[in-house]
Amino acid sequence: MKRFVVVGHRAASSGDFKLDDMAGGAGRLDILLRCINSTFFLSHGIRRDAEIYLVLQGEPNPPRTIRINGSEVRYLNPDERSTGALVRNALLKDLEGDEVRSSPGIYISKRSFSQVLEDLSKVSRIVYLKEDGQDVRGQDLEGDITFVISDHQDLREEEEALLLAHQPLTVTLGPLSYHADHCITIMLNELDRRQ
Amino acid sequence: MKRFVVVGHRAASSGDFKLDDMAGGAGRLDILLRCINSTFFLSHGIRRDAEIYLVLQGEPNPPRTIRINGSEVRYLNPDERSTGALVRNALLKDLEGDEVRSSPGIYISKRSFSQVLEDLSKVSRIVYLKEDGQDVRGQDLEGDITFVISDHQDLREEEEALLLAHQPLTVTLGPLSYHADHCITIMLNELDRRQ
Repeated sequence: MKRFVVVGHRAASSGDFKLDDMAGGAGRLDILLRCINSTFFLSHGIRRDAEIYLVLQGEPNPPRTIRINGSEVRYLNPDERSTGALVRNALLKDLEGDEVRSSPGIYISKRSFSQVLEDLSKVSRIVYLKEDGQDVRGQDLEGDITFVISDHQDLREEEEALLLAHQPLTVTLGPLSYHADHCITIMLNELDRRQ
Repeated sequence: MKRFVVVGHRAASSGDFKLDDMAGGAGRLDILLRCINSTFFLSHGIRRDAEIYLVLQGEPNPPRTIRINGSEVRYLNPDERSTGALVRNALLKDLEGDEVRSSPGIYISKRSFSQVLEDLSKVSRIVYLKEDGQDVRGQDLEGDITFVISDHQDLREEEEALLLAHQPLTVTLGPLSYHADHCITIMLNELDRRQ
């Protein structure tokens, strides 16, 4: 499985936003929606071996984590607006106890960044995508692997400390600094070439 | 200069569409909007050495070509909706004679795919991004270079003939077939690594 964890520092943690205002009032949710697109879409299908975790840390109910699993997901289209509607539906779910299914392959929970890392580190290798990491080309990327990426803000000091406690491989994708969704696209291309 | 030409086979050629319906009524304009994002956005700025040509071949007024130049462009944001508004503004311009400026760095003309290729081949090397091309890694990509990509439909036979008349280098990005915007992201990463 290829997994991506994306931290949305200001991303809305309730469904109380307008689909016309996802780059504004929803706390740059647009960035996370593009990450969903990058994680799953191929020209002729969906990447069934991919999964994304969006950790929403904006108001009013942080944290919320939306998990989308490629082997189950349905009704996913590439455009931001329709993907935003799926995410909003998940955020409108009543959350009691554990993870709740919103639609096929789309789940929501109250898991924090720390809990997501804890859970994933038991089944997957953790990789930190960061500008000053080692060049991804030539790195061993075999097996179940989880890439952690921040949104338009860097990981906060305490978030980075949580991540580094899992002793991740730290890799970079090139000499420039890219948007989170572009990082996912480049990373998946690199993995495709290994198979 | 790094240039991309993207053919939108059904993309609306007038501004008479709703921003809520760009993936539907506007003939999959959403694909082209994501190509704009991929062409220009870096984490901390705009690629000033990039340019994109969107060749709109849908109804009611084909062809229309929107050209966006990174060294001049302003008011560009990464989300689909705001980019769609800029493109719609361009499509609402009265077109008499040559290319018309709609907003800083955004231009519209009646140029066809054939004319765009003709013009660009005078100043730039033409490269065709296609699944059965040679692996892009290891290819010479120096100098002013123009990548031609199709939207969700392959180039039509007559379009491909027009392109092949310019004797393009034909390259592929990996073993799978990607969305046009993802192709741009991967291609630019490869070029970034060469610099």
